[in-house]
Amino acid sequence: MSTPDRITGVLSPVVTPFKADLSPDPKRFVRQCRWLLSQDVGLAVFGTNSEANSLSTEEKIELLDRLVAGGIDPGRLMPGTGCCALSDSVRLTGHAMKVGAGGVLMLPPFYYKGVSDDGLFKNFAEVIERVGDQRLRVYLYHIPPVSNVPITLPLIERLLKAYPGIVAGVKDSSGDWSNTKAMLDAFAASGFDVFAGSETFLLANMRNGGAGCISATANVHPGPIARLFREWQAADADAQQARLDEIRGIVQRYPMIPALKATIARCGGDGAWVTVRPPLVALTAEQRAALAADLGRAAFTMPGLGLED
Amino acid sequence: MSTPDRITGVLSPVVTPFKADLSPDPKRFVRQCRWLLSQDVGLAVFGTNSEANSLSTEEKIELLDRLVAGGIDPGRLMPGTGCCALSDSVRLTGHAMKVGAGGVLMLPPFYYKGVSDDGLFKNFAEVIERVGDQRLRVYLYHIPPVSNVPITLPLIERLLKAYPGIVAGVKDSSGDWSNTKAMLDAFAASGFDVFAGSETFLLANMRNGGAGCISATANVHPGPIARLFREWQAADADAQQARLDEIRGIVQRYPMIPALKATIARCGGDGAWVTVRPPLVALTAEQRAALAADLGRAAFTMPGLGLED
Repeated sequence: MSTPDRITGVLSPVVTPFKADLSPDPKRFVRQCRWLLSQDVGLAVFGTNSEANSLSTEEKIELLDRLVAGGIDPGRLMPGTGCCALSDSVRLTGHAMKVGAGGVLMLPPFYYKGVSDDGLFKNFAEVIERVGDQRLRVYLYHIPPVSNVPITLPLIERLLKAYPGIVAGVKDSSGDWSNTKAMLDAFAASGFDVFAGSETFLLANMRNGGAGCISATANVHPGPIARLFREWQAADADAQQARLDEIRGIVQRYPMIPALKATIARCGGDGAWVTVRPPLVALTAEQRAALAADLGRAAFTMPGLGLED
Repeated sequence: MSTPDRITGVLSPVVTPFKADLSPDPKRFVRQCRWLLSQDVGLAVFGTNSEANSLSTEEKIELLDRLVAGGIDPGRLMPGTGCCALSDSVRLTGHAMKVGAGGVLMLPPFYYKGVSDDGLFKNFAEVIERVGDQRLRVYLYHIPPVSNVPITLPLIERLLKAYPGIVAGVKDSSGDWSNTKAMLDAFAASGFDVFAGSETFLLANMRNGGAGCISATANVHPGPIARLFREWQAADADAQQARLDEIRGIVQRYPMIPALKATIARCGGDGAWVTVRPPLVALTAEQRAALAADLGRAAFTMPGLGLED
């Protein structure tokens, strides 16, 4: 039940490449985003799997500018702009609107725990009102296993009532299908777009009125995930889902972000991709070899990666 | 077993005043810091109770500059400079050194959970090496109930070995005395300064070789806490501790940060102090009245507050 001109489909929380000195690498970032778009996958840059919270607001603004200067269609961008500090969230969301982002994915402030829905409502309301742009499309980011600050159904209801059209959807990374289903049942019919937090629930989400998924694994397996989004009503949809589950099952045996980067490095023939920022650590050589062997046995490939320049 | 020229004693994670538009209020901040110093309490600005993680790096840099311009002795400052983004931690720690701060209190990056000691070591090491200043004194900030990212004893041991003198101590806000005791037993004799995370453990900490405490309640009850630090070997030390516990017990019946601000507002006759940034919410009028009544029954006062200008 999606609304025209709204982002739908499969998006990747694009992993952020770093140079040897741990500064962001805009050239590799633009190249990776081009490849993802070529696979029909949108760009949820600055997500959890982007190490976004290991980047400063300035670094994110610079990377956004480099993407747009590099010819990336801003309408395909859904940058993460929810920070701990209201001032950072306002600044980054404002910049996302300035470059014409199709939407923004907004974490709640995640340092203080046990905060009230009143406080979270006020946070999102202040960002929306201070940015003051009717084109703004806010996707709320529910990821309690990492943020430890949930986005509850009553909070969504209150935000939808206060900012209809602007509060556009949610990414549910709870990993709990019953929660995704509750969000769909409560809000999807009114045009609120529910994105599953991984492709594990893509088919179930589409069958229940969802808008797509935003998934870590879309960094390495974009084409087949996007295909299931397009073909979810096809006869072989369950078989497609099973194949997606097989690949995800392999990748998530390893620490996710380093595993994604190691896979991009290997399949694209570009070793610099393995670098992560602390507090994360790269896979060991042994882990990289085991992951490559596991994926090899599953006949996994990344078509076109490393050929785009 | 403290080292000369090191910060010891009682510090306050100074609450940050906001204007009606939610921007920081440097004038009230300088005034409050002056009053705290007059009570013999040091300035752990940008701590958890300062709503530091609700401030941008720019806002913190501006406030540090305003404190020093306002005549605050930078040697009494232990600003919180540990951020989620390495680039922010380096920038803010570098600025703290530029203004001559006596030390910095460093949270681990707190978005990603379940990270390894290897990754945390690398984070602190990168900050220390990029700042590259032998005057730097790093106090590690262990506050697992909020950060959800602990500072373990093996991590402290490794950092002490790599950066002796620079890694100067810890604030233990675990609320678990057995953990504080383990830190004291392992490291205090070598000159590592263990600060209790509240005055609840001040006397126990001093009796076991600790360096003092850094406590939320030192925002409102600074003089008596500082007195127990000076007189911990006095005959009435246990009675002094009991009085500190009584006042803290009252304040912590309410949400801590709004309760501290409400108490400063009331006792200083300056209602603007009640403002908090989202995601926190101010106390209700009923809560403020109940807190005032509770403190009144305990004959609580804040001598000299509101008279300093």
